[in-house]
Amino acid sequence: MKAIQDHYPPTFAHCYGCGPANPFGLHLKSYLREDQTEARFTPDQRYSGGVPDNVYGGMIASLLDCHGTASAAAFAYRARGREMGDSGPPIRFVTASLHINFRKPTPLGEELHITGTLKSLDGRKASILLSLSARGEECAQGEMLAVELKS
Amino acid sequence: MKAIQDHYPPTFAHCYGCGPANPFGLHLKSYLREDQTEARFTPDQRYSGGVPDNVYGGMIASLLDCHGTASAAAFAYRARGREMGDSGPPIRFVTASLHINFRKPTPLGEELHITGTLKSLDGRKASILLSLSARGEECAQGEMLAVELKS
Repeated sequence: MKAIQDHYPPTFAHCYGCGPANPFGLHLKSYLREDQTEARFTPDQRYSGGVPDNVYGGMIASLLDCHGTASAAAFAYRARGREMGDSGPPIRFVTASLHINFRKPTPLGEELHITGTLKSLDGRKASILLSLSARGEECAQGEMLAVELKS
Repeated sequence: MKAIQDHYPPTFAHCYGCGPANPFGLHLKSYLREDQTEARFTPDQRYSGGVPDNVYGGMIASLLDCHGTASAAAFAYRARGREMGDSGPPIRFVTASLHINFRKPTPLGEELHITGTLKSLDGRKASILLSLSARGEECAQGEMLAVELKS
């Protein structure tokens, strides 16, 4: 099954966090499963927080941001009865705002599980609820307002 | 003049975004100047957004996050009449929440100017207003709630 990001048009595939065309990047892969999107990612030891046991905040924000815009695109395709990768114009979203609650330290060296659910979709605006967990415990929550780019 | 991060205690200096002890990191340096903190940083070409002309959102979040917690520490030292690096217990903050408004695309290859101002300081809680500009134009705004770690 191809990831949402693997359907991004080549001109839009350069993101450090999730772009398949970025040779240096993190290559986050997000998938739409039933009513939720999900991604799994294990940050390597470079991405330490202030103390080496924890993931740094910027990584958490990056994962939520990239997963959020991918989620918005996937939910918009579904709402319009379309399939990602079909012959229609690509649907792409960018972040207008992102709010993150850091609930507890995120352990480094663990697989992180990121989910997205659709709160609302209104014209070109999508609101996405995000969650990041490790070892089954939620470490961060996010809420994103994403805006669809005009094709 | 030493940066705020250069006063972090060695056990707390490992952050990928701003820790002096992280050999792989970005080494963001923040300074307190009069009533504002500031930092300057030029992301390299790896940190592209979806299109290669722009900085990826996770980098913007990282810069605001690291600058915000540094700002909170600096403002708290000042409020208590202390100097960073003095012989007292280190004052360290972590992010409780971060809200970012992405106002316009942030150009890649330009020096970014990040500022922080103190909105409120109440016990262990600091609220910091953040701004990120390129070529004199504000590209992102942030607001952080930071919480002081118990020493």
